[in-house]
Amino acid sequence: MAAQPTMIWGYHPVIEAVRAGRRRCYSIFLARERSEARLQPLIEMAAERSVAIQSVSTAKLTGMVGHGRHQGVAAKVSEYPLSELDDILASAKADPMKAFILVLDQIVDPQNLGAIARTAHCAGIHGIIMPKKRSAPPSPAASKASAGALEHMAVAYVTNIANTLNELKSYGVWVAGADHHSKESVFATDLTGPLAIVVGGEEKGIRPLVKKQCDFTLSIPQTGSIGSLNASVASAVILYEAFRQRRCADISPGL
Amino acid sequence: MAAQPTMIWGYHPVIEAVRAGRRRCYSIFLARERSEARLQPLIEMAAERSVAIQSVSTAKLTGMVGHGRHQGVAAKVSEYPLSELDDILASAKADPMKAFILVLDQIVDPQNLGAIARTAHCAGIHGIIMPKKRSAPPSPAASKASAGALEHMAVAYVTNIANTLNELKSYGVWVAGADHHSKESVFATDLTGPLAIVVGGEEKGIRPLVKKQCDFTLSIPQTGSIGSLNASVASAVILYEAFRQRRCADISPGL
Repeated sequence: MAAQPTMIWGYHPVIEAVRAGRRRCYSIFLARERSEARLQPLIEMAAERSVAIQSVSTAKLTGMVGHGRHQGVAAKVSEYPLSELDDILASAKADPMKAFILVLDQIVDPQNLGAIARTAHCAGIHGIIMPKKRSAPPSPAASKASAGALEHMAVAYVTNIANTLNELKSYGVWVAGADHHSKESVFATDLTGPLAIVVGGEEKGIRPLVKKQCDFTLSIPQTGSIGSLNASVASAVILYEAFRQRRCADISPGL
Repeated sequence: MAAQPTMIWGYHPVIEAVRAGRRRCYSIFLARERSEARLQPLIEMAAERSVAIQSVSTAKLTGMVGHGRHQGVAAKVSEYPLSELDDILASAKADPMKAFILVLDQIVDPQNLGAIARTAHCAGIHGIIMPKKRSAPPSPAASKASAGALEHMAVAYVTNIANTLNELKSYGVWVAGADHHSKESVFATDLTGPLAIVVGGEEKGIRPLVKKQCDFTLSIPQTGSIGSLNASVASAVILYEAFRQRRCADISPGL
């Protein structure tokens, strides 16, 4: 069965989808009222890859994508290219930096999924694993929120996160759960080994049966009276502390 | 002249405004269709402080705040309590942890201001300094995006950021500019002294005349092909690396 075409929109999702080459790109649509200089790299990239560009009115583009948040750029592409868990494990195994995997346990807001995927891409995550049920899908809105990072990121759906964590452990991957009730500070935890970081949903965090499968949990120390950091920021702090330990320990000022 | 009353909305902004006690709170409005258990602490806190609570319809509340994103909670309060630069310097001087100040050079999105203020509160920042021109104000929407953290945070407007950075330096504060073109990694920089971190606007970063006043610049190392992290995430990574060096170096796993 042929993949269902879908419309993605916004400058970054479209140029990153073309650059990543994981989706089939049927056509790019540019609003003729706009002619920013920054469109030039996209136009050149499309020409190199023989992707047709159509000039349309802004109003028509708004009608095609269903809203006005398209920045004058959209593309008709094949559906989001989901990965298999095995694909993520294979790229983790091939990396001398060791497995570095992100598990999202029911992140439901596409903006959060996008923001987290962008950070994950910048921090060198091999892939994002999430449950099929009650997860924000890698939609065009999520791709926009990721500044196109989702177009490069391996994303795999699994039916049972707890089983998947067990499978990861059987491959020697350490499973760390982000839990703001944890007494273990992320800054006091060795995160240099093969690692999967589990981040829970926005409201309730990691589900108990998922937490039970974690080798350990960790939290971000905080001052002040507000409960906790938001999901996207908490993920960023943990992913970058792991990044620092794994890649930057040799340049640390020794504090 | 009496302060102009304003409507704030959403559970966290209202309860944190009452808890912080920096704004005068004239009345709290609760949608009578909602009766979540989580409203109880707010109701008790209002009673302790003799703040009147009015029960209104959800439709009326929507009319009062101008949109439906109020979660059934709003309050009529005095305008946002801006601080003076001297207030921030005084609380920085009084803290044995040394000055830890955030300067936002033209962050224009209230969502970003809110998200950054929330992280700043959790990381123990003494205050946020921003230019009056072309900055998102600490509006009700920003307070909502901050989960109420803005109600506790000292925020000072200044007319000229470059002059303010010079003033900070004259007090012995080191001024670090976040600049993704910088060759200095945040993870290789000593951030333990009295410190002001300057974060630039979403599109163009720190302005050249402001950057010129920084003692040094720093960047967040990144993998992958996407340009850079978003403003809120970049701020979080830098603020928490400073936090780690200043407060958690003794618990570091020694990597």
